[in-house]
Formats: sequence, C-alpha cells, structure tokens
Amino acid sequence: MLRWCKELAREGIGALSYPVEYGGHNSMAEYAAAFETIAYHDLSLTIKFGVQFGLWGGAVYNLGTKRHHDAYLRATGTLELPGCFAMTETGHGSNVRGLETTAVYDHDNRELIVHSPSVAAGKEYIGNAMHARMAAVFCQLIVNGESHGVHAVVVPIRSTDGLTLPGIRVEDNGYKMGLNGVDNGRLWFDHVRVPVGNLLDKYGGITEEGTYTSPIESPTRRFFTMLGTLVGGRVFVPRAGLSAAKSALTIAVRYGLRRRQFPSESMRSETIILDYPNQQRRLIPLVAKAYAVQFGLDHLLDRYVNRTEEQMREIEAMAAGLKSYATWFATAAIQECREATGGKGYLAENRFADLKGDTDIFTTFEGDNTVLMQLLAKSLLTEFKKSFQEDGNFAVLKFIGRRVGTIVTEQNPYVVRQTDREHLESRSFYLSAFQFRARRLVSTLGSRLRAYIKEGMSSYQAGLLCQTHMIEAAEAYVELLVLEASLARVDALGDGRLPSSARAASDSSADLPDLLQKVILLYAHHTIEQHRGWYLESDYISGQKSKAIRKLVDKLCAELRPEVGALVDGFGIPDKLLGAPIAL
Amino acid sequence: MLRWCKELAREGIGALSYPVEYGGHNSMAEYAAAFETIAYHDLSLTIKFGVQFGLWGGAVYNLGTKRHHDAYLRATGTLELPGCFAMTETGHGSNVRGLETTAVYDHDNRELIVHSPSVAAGKEYIGNAMHARMAAVFCQLIVNGESHGVHAVVVPIRSTDGLTLPGIRVEDNGYKMGLNGVDNGRLWFDHVRVPVGNLLDKYGGITEEGTYTSPIESPTRRFFTMLGTLVGGRVFVPRAGLSAAKSALTIAVRYGLRRRQFPSESMRSETIILDYPNQQRRLIPLVAKAYAVQFGLDHLLDRYVNRTEEQMREIEAMAAGLKSYATWFATAAIQECREATGGKGYLAENRFADLKGDTDIFTTFEGDNTVLMQLLAKSLLTEFKKSFQEDGNFAVLKFIGRRVGTIVTEQNPYVVRQTDREHLESRSFYLSAFQFRARRLVSTLGSRLRAYIKEGMSSYQAGLLCQTHMIEAAEAYVELLVLEASLARVDALGDGRLPSSARAASDSSADLPDLLQKVILLYAHHTIEQHRGWYLESDYISGQKSKAIRKLVDKLCAELRPEVGALVDGFGIPDKLLGAPIAL
Repeated sequence: MLRWCKELAREGIGALSYPVEYGGHNSMAEYAAAFETIAYHDLSLTIKFGVQFGLWGGAVYNLGTKRHHDAYLRATGTLELPGCFAMTETGHGSNVRGLETTAVYDHDNRELIVHSPSVAAGKEYIGNAMHARMAAVFCQLIVNGESHGVHAVVVPIRSTDGLTLPGIRVEDNGYKMGLNGVDNGRLWFDHVRVPVGNLLDKYGGITEEGTYTSPIESPTRRFFTMLGTLVGGRVFVPRAGLSAAKSALTIAVRYGLRRRQFPSESMRSETIILDYPNQQRRLIPLVAKAYAVQFGLDHLLDRYVNRTEEQMREIEAMAAGLKSYATWFATAAIQECREATGGKGYLAENRFADLKGDTDIFTTFEGDNTVLMQLLAKSLLTEFKKSFQEDGNFAVLKFIGRRVGTIVTEQNPYVVRQTDREHLESRSFYLSAFQFRARRLVSTLGSRLRAYIKEGMSSYQAGLLCQTHMIEAAEAYVELLVLEASLARVDALGDGRLPSSARAASDSSADLPDLLQKVILLYAHHTIEQHRGWYLESDYISGQKSKAIRKLVDKLCAELRPEVGALVDGFGIPDKLLGAPIAL
Repeated sequence: MLRWCKELAREGIGALSYPVEYGGHNSMAEYAAAFETIAYHDLSLTIKFGVQFGLWGGAVYNLGTKRHHDAYLRATGTLELPGCFAMTETGHGSNVRGLETTAVYDHDNRELIVHSPSVAAGKEYIGNAMHARMAAVFCQLIVNGESHGVHAVVVPIRSTDGLTLPGIRVEDNGYKMGLNGVDNGRLWFDHVRVPVGNLLDKYGGITEEGTYTSPIESPTRRFFTMLGTLVGGRVFVPRAGLSAAKSALTIAVRYGLRRRQFPSESMRSETIILDYPNQQRRLIPLVAKAYAVQFGLDHLLDRYVNRTEEQMREIEAMAAGLKSYATWFATAAIQECREATGGKGYLAENRFADLKGDTDIFTTFEGDNTVLMQLLAKSLLTEFKKSFQEDGNFAVLKFIGRRVGTIVTEQNPYVVRQTDREHLESRSFYLSAFQFRARRLVSTLGSRLRAYIKEGMSSYQAGLLCQTHMIEAAEAYVELLVLEASLARVDALGDGRLPSSARAASDSSADLPDLLQKVILLYAHHTIEQHRGWYLESDYISGQKSKAIRKLVDKLCAELRPEVGALVDGFGIPDKLLGAPIAL
C-alpha cells in the first residue's frame, strides 16, 4: 500500500488539492475524483491515501501557518514525509473535547511536552501509524498551568530510517474486519519534547513572551472552528463509500441480468432472476438511491469547494448528515447485493467480502453516524431558533421552505386522498412531502425541547429524551437536500446541461432526462414509502394513498427493469475493476 | 477443523441424533444443543460438524435403507468415514428439481453411471469437499431412458489415503467472506460407475429386473417428500445463527454498559452509552427479539422431534419460515452490534468480523431466504384454500385464528383509537394485531391471486405479481408463531415451569416471569411498530395509537435498561467464548 501510495504521489495525485506553490493543483474537485476512483480499485489504498494527503496534509494545511506549510506540505505531497493524524484516543472517540493527551508549554526551553497520562489516553486506530515519521497530535494545550483546549502539535515519531523515536510507543492495532491494507495503530507519548514552533498555531499560538494567544476569543467557538476546517474528510469519505456501493450494485445487477433460476412460463428457458418482482424491488430502488446520493454528494462538494467563511457552519452540518446517510446506504446496499447474488456473492473473488469488510467502519470513522446526525439536528435547531426569533411562529416554514421554489402543499383532505399517477408523479406532491417531513420534524423537535425545558427539565435531560427525534429530523433534512440536488441535476439535464457522471448511461438510452427523471422519482417514492408509517401518523397521506405509493414503486421498478443495465453502466466503473465476472 | 470434528466425534457428540444401534443417542434435542453451543465457539466448526453428521449422515439416514445405515452410519458418526452432501450445482441452487447431474442405470452391470454433463452441472459450495471420502450426490435418476427425477446416490470420491478417485474432479471453492474453516469445493463426475446398491432408495429404487419402483406414485410428491426428510438442516441452522446473534448482543451490551462518552449532567463522569435512549433503542429490542426467536425455534424443534408423518408439511413450512426469520435477524443484529461498538467492534479480536463474515451466508444456504418465504406462503395458501373450500368465506379466520384461544379484536372505531397502556399491554390488543396481520395478508393474497386468474392470467404470472405480498404474508405468519411460542413460555414460567434457557437470567432478577413478560411485550410492540405503515394503511390503528405504540417501545426500552445486563447473561454464553473482553 505504501508503495502504491508513493506511485500515486509520484504522479502528482496526492497533492492535487494543495496550493500550486507546494506542488499541487489547488483543486479539491480533482482530489475528490481521484479519491472516489481509487475506491473502485481498493479501499485500503483509498484510506491510506486519504490519511496521508487528506488527514495529515489537511491538518498541516488547515491548522498550521505558512512556516508549517513550507516545512511539510511539499514533502507530504510527494510522500517523502509520511505522516499520520493522531486524534482519536482509546478513551475518547466521539468526544474529541475530552481528549486526555496533554501538551504542556515549557517556557524556559520554548518547548512543548507531549504526554499520554494513561493507557486509555493513547491514540488509537491511527492510520499510517506504522509508516509515519510525523504525527499531528491532538492534545490539550496547557500554558502556564492553564488549559486552552484541544490543539494539534506536530510530533516526530520515527527517524528517517524508520526507527521509533525515544518516548514514543507504537503498537499495531491488529487484524480488523477490513481495510487490512491500512496500518492502524496505537500511539503513546512519554513526555516527548518538541519545539514550540511545532504547534499548528493558526487558531491558537504561544507568544515569544510565553502567553497563549488566539484570534478566536471563545474556547468553544475556537474548538469548533478548528474541527470545522477538517470537514474535508466528511466530504470525501462518503464518496468512497458510494463508490463501493456502486461496485456492489454493478456486480449484483449484472449477475441478476444473467442468472436464471426456475422454469419460466414458456418452459423454454429458466427465468432471469431480475425478472422476478422481488429481485427488482431489492436492487432497483438501491440503484436509484445511488444516483440520488451521488447528486447530493456532488452538491456538497460544490458547496465545499466554493465555500465562504460564513457558510462553513452550514456546510459542516450538511457534510455530517450526508456522510452518515451515504455510508449507511453503502452498508445496506452492499449487504442487499451480497444476498441477491447468493452463494456466488459469498466467494471472495466476487468482491463483496472486501466491499463489506472494508466499508463497515465508514459508519464509524470520520465521526460516528449517530453522533453526526445529532450534530446536524442541533445545527438545524439553531437555524430554526434564529428564524423563529426573527419571524415568529411560522418561521420554520420559511426556514426549510425558503430554499425551494415550489409551493408547499398543505394537508388538505382532498390532496391527502389523491392517488392518481399524475398527482403522485408531480413535484408538488413528492417534493412537498419531503419538505413537510423535514419541516415538521424540526419544528416538533423544537417544541418538544421547549416544553420539556419549560417543565423545569435541564436542557441535557431534554436533549436525551429527544435523541431519536433528532436523528429522524436530521435524516429528513438530508433526504430533502438529496432530492433537491437530484431534481436540480434532472432539470439541468433537461436544459441540455449534461452532467458527466450520467453520460455513460446515455449511450443506451434515447431520452436521458426522462430516464433520470424516473430514477429520481423512484428514489422519492421509495423514500416516502419507507417513511409511510410517519406520513400516515401525521395524516399527510391516507391509507389508500399509501397503498398507491407502494404500487407506484412496484411499477417504477418494473418500468426501470429494461434500463437497469444501462443505469449501472452509467456508474462508469471499468470492467477490470469489478473483480472476477461472476460465473454462472 | 477436521481434527476438532474428530475430537467431537470421539466424544460421541457427532452421532447424538443417530439410533443407539449405530453408536448414537437417538436424540435430536441433544444434537441441537451441541450444534448451537459449538456455534458460540466457532462457526466454521459448527458448519463442518453439521455437514458431516447432519447433512451427509442425514442423507444416508433419511433417504437410505437399512443396508446403507449398516454400511455407513456408524463410521459416519465416528468420522472414520468423512462424507459430503452434493446437492447444489453452479447452474441450479434454489431450483433443485432442475439439477443436471445424471445417474443413468446400466442394467447389464447393475451399475449407475453418475455424470456431470456440463461445467455448470458441477456441484458447488459443497462442504467437506476436500476431506470427504463419500458424497451423497443428488442427480436425475434415469432408468431405461426415462427420468424419475432427483434421487441421491452414494459415490466414493476419495480412497482411504485421500487420493481423488478416477472420474472425479475436485476444486477448492477458494477464499470466502467467512467460514474459511470449511472446505467448500466443486465436484464434477465423468461417467463414474457405482453399484446400483449405492442408490439411497427409501423413496425410489430399482428392482432386480431393472425397473424403477417407488412407494410414492406422483413424481412431484416424491420429490417433495424426499426433500422434506432433509428439513433438519433448516431446524438447526437458525439455532446456530441465533447463537451468533446472542454472542454479538452480549458483547455489545456489555460494552454499552461500560463505555462512557460525553460529559453527563453532573459532570462528575461521562455518560454510560447505554444510558443514551438511542443506544437503548438500537440494542434492547434486539435482545428482546433474540429471546422471542429462541422460543420460536424451541417450539419448532419440539414439533420436529415429536413429529408425525401427517405434520411434516406443516413443520417443513414452519422451518422454512423460521430459518429465514432467524437468519435475517442474525445478520441485522450482528451489524447493529458492530456499529454500536464503534472502532472497537471493527477489531478482529472483538469477534464481530468473524460473526458477520461467518453468518452472512446463513440467509442463503439451506435454502435462500426469499425462496423459502415463498415456499411458506404457498403452503399457507394451500391450507387457506383447504379451509376456504370446507367452510366458505370466513374459513381463513378460523385457519389462523383457531390456533389461539383469545378472541380476535375486530377493527372497531373505539379500539382503533384506544391508547391507554393497559390496553396496549393486553394480549387482546397485541396478539390480536399479530393474528390480524397474518390472517389479512394471507386472505388478501388469496383473493388477489384468484382475481388475477379470473382475469385470465396464468397462475405463473399471477404468482409473480404477488411475490412481495407472499413474502410479507409469510413473515406475518412467522411472527405470529414466534409470539405465540413466546407467550406460551411466559405462561409456563408463570406456572412455575421454568425453561432452562432463561434460568441464568433469574439469578439477578427477583421476578423472572414479569421480566420475561416485559421482554416479549417489547418484542410484540417493536414488531408492530416496524409494521406500523401497514397497520395504519389497514386502519387497524389510528395515527395517535401508532404514536402511543412508539412511546411505549421507548418506555419499555428504558424500563428494561437496568435488566439488560442480566438478560444477556441469560443467554448463558461462557465468558471465555466471547473473545477478548472489549477494552475501554
């Protein structure tokens, strides 16, 4: 893996996102394309690549200042300087603020003393731990006996000939469920001294006089600003997860189009298994969702690349949500594909073993999905509160409604019961349904929290009671975002602005905008179907309408059945990267 | 693995289910206990053990006659004679009737010529393929040019010193997602001659005169009778899957009770993660379901052990459904447990890697779950049709209603809206809800099929259109069965008849019947909640009632939180079989 990474670095692929003056292309979009394409090939390589160029390089670039960039960035991009990103500790994963590693400032020597006070304070699951020469170590910065919260310090951990330096203890994390091409390890520091200049001090440094200084007064805001600059990982990781899902779907659909089982009616040959409605139901909505998630992630990338400072909180929240949604989707889709390919899918040569094992941790790393969804929900509440205070009771309507041009359909008794296909296929139904769900779940979340607090409950207790509600609200928001991004893509297609990711699908399809429109329609209705319990509870649809939606999903699956081969071709994965073709 | 199996054979564990005269105990229940206990230890060993003693031994025992028992059974039980069960072919997995391997009778030599006519006709995924000396080969029996359908023939494939015999080609299946301790392989036969006596001829033989003879006239009935005798695998495999789920749940719950993350309100220590409602929601319903599934599987085993000839069809259908339900549950539960244990869960030392990889094929082998669920649905329809013909329109009510003593609550407007806890916790609500769902889904399935056929559709086409409906109906039936079996266990407990599997839980709980009652109540309501879309569509519950059910599930999870440690202790898995204790 290290050799492969060096190969990629030699071709300039590692440094793509870095500024030109450090050997890069200054292009996040190109880096993203490289990252997700490598994911078709080998996920260990993807992650090892991401750790070196994205996490370690990203920490230096985003948290460091020019002197750090000059010192490390070029050598990082060429992989002459292998580094690692040492944040997570055994005792503290999700709760980064609770990290126990300390960096104590020693003014006499102008040094920082980096130390792990306990076994559980050791860094864990650190990628590149066995190869890295440097580590960006996240630790509590203590100056003159006062803690200033989590900061990152560059700590050399190995000599140029690969020997572990004094005071550093490294242990391999051992065999994992997957990603065994990544050298995850544990790291402990025993009073390791580094020059104070090794502090990545963009958001907090130490003056010549030995006092702490930061451009951000509030420790909380400082903490979140620093973490916020590292959001890139959450923009890129879900793209790799989606690549894995697309590989799995391509393999399973192609198998489903060739595999026959049980005599067909004519008895001349057995039935192609994708002609079974149940098999269509298993795979085709997942293909549709892969397209929708792709469009959602593209939108996120676009927002991230063109971000302004003020948009950062919103983009962070969006990234948290989409990372979770896409990686959960990947886990579920790959599992369904394995089951849909039976015994053949169990053989390692057909790739599901690696796809499953390698991606399983995607729902945990770069932020545990359930924690990220709560983070998003809290951000939605903040926005909600803001609009609420500004505009009174119905501001939430504006908040989630304002970003779309369509009129929100209210729960009028006629519409609740309307089941004709024209209505069901209109955006004024399905887009409104997504908006309604997102809006309602955030506003009821806000009211519940307010009511609990009014009753005298602490906000901590109130938050606990609403935890699953928060996750549901965050999911609804992400789904709305994915649908809107998808519809924007469909519209752009209709206008003749063809997105590259869908180009391949067009080869075999006369009318690409119509096809893609139907794909997104399936995504929309399949999603509403999955939430139909909630919609029925909320009296947003009648029982008859709910049944009509299920029938429409059946119908859309059947209608897309002849196109599904072209749709997975449209993912554009080269055949040679799809493992051994599944023999029948 | 072979050595371990020999060790088990030496202790008489392999032969437990065989008749005493062949070295056994004549005890299916003891065999089941051994099988599921080995599954706590190592799933490859479980499957290797099952292939030798259950599948190969079972084929000889169930399809052979005394001369085969005398020749093979004792040596099978001691593992002096390693065998394999060669049914599945590359081209035909689920469709066993379509197997292409032939056994042509040669009267002059009183021999059968076993042959694989194509590459795809080769046997595949055959466990023990690399160690076996004999194979029970399933093939089309052809006598005097006429095919009599699938029969099993004992074919020697290796010499006593392990050399492959002439005409036999064996290939290892290669690396798999899991169960790599099982030597799955592929087998081809090139005109291999065996004495006609090797035909396992309980249900179909060849006379001295060279004509085919069978006690069962109809080839279809003969086929299903033969397959039916092999149902044992579907009785035992889900028990091993459940063992794996119980291992995963024990590990995840214990981790959840020790792991802390994020400051609690008091700020004195961080919060135990199982005190987060979302974490409770993830794990506690799964613990409850594990108990319920256990009771369902115990009921199936009991029925299987005490079966009469007439009950076989019903028991087969039940086994098909429970095998699917339990193995899907295992896959889902193990996945949830991995995610709930974060990075620690990803390390191989904490067992989820093996539990996931090893059990993933359980949803495919011993019959693909979706195919089995349709088999069950068809059997329900047959029963339904029978009662329908006997008693007219409302017979289906009797069919699914008759097996329970309670009165079926009809959809009266008051009950549909009733949300008080007493009502929700009463069997007259939740048991009736399960009955209603099972009954309604079977009866609407029947009506739909009838209507399609009346419109002139072929029964094949009609069946295709109703495929997902069939699977839903089968699931509802299994859930009713699981609930009934669980309630019977709860009642038995209340009467002081303590089941052994729940004994350990009693150590820490003052009132076991109450605790178990609550566990099953959670299973019932969590299941209804998962189907709430369907119940709402069917106007069986109001939106308010659906919300009340969700709240009750929240509440039951919280109420069971203090007991969940004892509940997983109640699974009774020895600590040393739970891998490295997850370090915090």
